[in-house]
Amino acid sequence: MAVMGEGVVADPHAPVLCGDDLGLTRGDGCFEATRVVVGDDGVARADHLDAHLARMARSAAELEIPFDEPAWRELLEAALGAWRRPGEGVIRWELTRGREIAPNDPPTGIVTVFPMDAATMRQRTGVTAATLPIGRPSDAFADAPWLLGGVKTVSYAMNMAAGREARRRGVDDVLFTSTDGFALEAPRSALIWRVGDRLRTTRHDGTGVLRSITQAAIFDAAEADGVDVGYELIPVVELPGVDQAWLVSSGRLGAPILELDGRPMPNDDAWNERLAAWFER
Amino acid sequence: MAVMGEGVVADPHAPVLCGDDLGLTRGDGCFEATRVVVGDDGVARADHLDAHLARMARSAAELEIPFDEPAWRELLEAALGAWRRPGEGVIRWELTRGREIAPNDPPTGIVTVFPMDAATMRQRTGVTAATLPIGRPSDAFADAPWLLGGVKTVSYAMNMAAGREARRRGVDDVLFTSTDGFALEAPRSALIWRVGDRLRTTRHDGTGVLRSITQAAIFDAAEADGVDVGYELIPVVELPGVDQAWLVSSGRLGAPILELDGRPMPNDDAWNERLAAWFER
Repeated sequence: MAVMGEGVVADPHAPVLCGDDLGLTRGDGCFEATRVVVGDDGVARADHLDAHLARMARSAAELEIPFDEPAWRELLEAALGAWRRPGEGVIRWELTRGREIAPNDPPTGIVTVFPMDAATMRQRTGVTAATLPIGRPSDAFADAPWLLGGVKTVSYAMNMAAGREARRRGVDDVLFTSTDGFALEAPRSALIWRVGDRLRTTRHDGTGVLRSITQAAIFDAAEADGVDVGYELIPVVELPGVDQAWLVSSGRLGAPILELDGRPMPNDDAWNERLAAWFER
Repeated sequence: MAVMGEGVVADPHAPVLCGDDLGLTRGDGCFEATRVVVGDDGVARADHLDAHLARMARSAAELEIPFDEPAWRELLEAALGAWRRPGEGVIRWELTRGREIAPNDPPTGIVTVFPMDAATMRQRTGVTAATLPIGRPSDAFADAPWLLGGVKTVSYAMNMAAGREARRRGVDDVLFTSTDGFALEAPRSALIWRVGDRLRTTRHDGTGVLRSITQAAIFDAAEADGVDVGYELIPVVELPGVDQAWLVSSGRLGAPILELDGRPMPNDDAWNERLAAWFER
């Protein structure tokens, strides 16, 4: 792992953050993560880096934390330049509001690069999932920017707790559902479903669902190939009737849901291959 | 400020946390904070320390993070022993799941002590507040432990955003309201209201409201004095009709709400003094 601080590759076991950093004490910051692949040429390339930087700029704007795009790009390029481990890795970067007792200091930026974990790679061939109520209606975030819907903050304690709940239930992941009965997203993945030749994902307006870079990359390429793509809300009770569903993220890519709440879901490998190709385009 | 790491008082400007600490990258940890008063004898005393330690033990249990109570007590006593600044301060301590790439390392513990900020002290004489929808029904947390209702996690990005929304609206604080129309709590304070001689606060079951140490201390002492205290839900529309309401926290103590959504609220100083005395008992 490489930890970056102020443009220098640091020892990952050396402390880099002060105890009053608001990213730690208040979860007051945002982050991004994407896959890194080191090819035969030894060069590390990050998937959809521009799109991730653009999303972080939006997250930072919502949090009212300054975002210095050229500085971030330079830092990320330096981290990628220092990463040589063959195969797949993850680059993740956090921006926090900075130090509480030094409010005039710049915000804190951290970049880490580490190998892709084996469990995530295994899940690309399929995941089991359970629906889990998130305690909000599907329009909870409309006109309520203080709820930070769609903002990728580091305040992920609930997302992590949902992951533990998945393990307790013996499934790979959970799918959050609204109090009014719609499927939303997973704690760290977006939902795509297919009905015939049409691809759909959860709409963002009012739902608080994160705008997934992976889903958008797939939809952009699919649409260019003439596929009907769209943003909707699907009632949970209708999910067992779709032709296929995936949980997608920068690490999992397109992981078909093989089983939802104990019931098998249809899985068509031709469509899995199409999604993978669209993601890579 | 004193930052504690591994039992030693550290330079507050020296980094103490690694870049992969899950408290930073996922807001995956919990915290407590309480007032510290250094008296004429130069000794720092923390308010209701046992109750705060007990609540942190519950938070840690919900998060499934080991909590070593004697070690924490020792660390807090050491921090208090090193704090000599006369007057009021705040002691705050965070427990995180620890490092991502060193999962066998112990969890991370940080203690900071700093002077009480002047704005908080001024608010003890009264605050203005605006109601703010939190996008959940009042029973959202019933049978949903993964939502971490009542767990004092460091994932406070939304609480901080609500504070910025208060400043945008020109008020001192916001009061969260449920989608079914009840008043819940403030981002960092509990709500107490008075009707005649009866004191009430928001009930905890299902609401996700944090169990406030300050409110509990006041209610315990008030009840010992024969005052009728209880846990209820109050419709927001009924709040303007109560005889008095307060936002209470370890820093603000009992701050009367002087104005709610632009409308003046009744404020009886005799009751403010009673609350202050009950808190100190």
